[in-house]
Amino acid sequence: MITLGVADVSRARAFYERLGWRGQEAEETVFFQAGGMAVVLWARHKLAGDAGIEDRDAGGFGGLALAHNVRSRVEVDGVLAEAASAGAAITQPARETFYGGYAGYFTDPDGHAWEVAYNPGFAVGPDGSITVPDFGAS
Amino acid sequence: MITLGVADVSRARAFYERLGWRGQEAEETVFFQAGGMAVVLWARHKLAGDAGIEDRDAGGFGGLALAHNVRSRVEVDGVLAEAASAGAAITQPARETFYGGYAGYFTDPDGHAWEVAYNPGFAVGPDGSITVPDFGAS
Repeated sequence: MITLGVADVSRARAFYERLGWRGQEAEETVFFQAGGMAVVLWARHKLAGDAGIEDRDAGGFGGLALAHNVRSRVEVDGVLAEAASAGAAITQPARETFYGGYAGYFTDPDGHAWEVAYNPGFAVGPDGSITVPDFGAS
Repeated sequence: MITLGVADVSRARAFYERLGWRGQEAEETVFFQAGGMAVVLWARHKLAGDAGIEDRDAGGFGGLALAHNVRSRVEVDGVLAEAASAGAAITQPARETFYGGYAGYFTDPDGHAWEVAYNPGFAVGPDGSITVPDFGAS
């Protein structure tokens, strides 16, 4: 489960629903099923308080990126275009990657970073799950 | 896939391996299979650069929390104790939650927040996948 701290739960829900997700709300918290995971939207100050962490920063780069791995270059372009028209900022247009894939990044209205990636070395299952290949090394 | 930006890939890998995960490294990047997901460790400045996002903050609360959902209260206590002995900071000791569950939080050596939660309303599958129940409302 991944909980995204957001400034405005309704605004964030509307953004992700424009991407085609369907959320359910309870106690001012929105839950999306995403494959075998759940993505949750919750007020950022409530999340910080619940986690016992002081929130000195209002947003900006959170130091991590969520990735949506897709099955083709065309799908990367499609998801990024959909995100842009839903109001995302495209921080990195799709481009060829050093590992032989193709990827770009967007940020959601709260600055959470998402990569949209096609990586031919990482199998994407029918349910969207991803399998790290055996590198044959440690 | 979730990529965690870290200050020192080896230090971060050692931390997660003390939690029982097994990583594979390629190009100074470490990949862990976690159920149907992959968790990736990569230098924070490389991730910010790749994402096209300026990194003005060196750490602190990233505005989101990853959650490891487990099957019992006892398991919550066990994972938090394991994290503490691996060097995590326990930012919120486990406690009963308003939704009838039991949860606590820790941060990893780079400040990434993890919740360890037992939620009786969310089924955890044999592979660790989680299913959001039907709330019967939108």
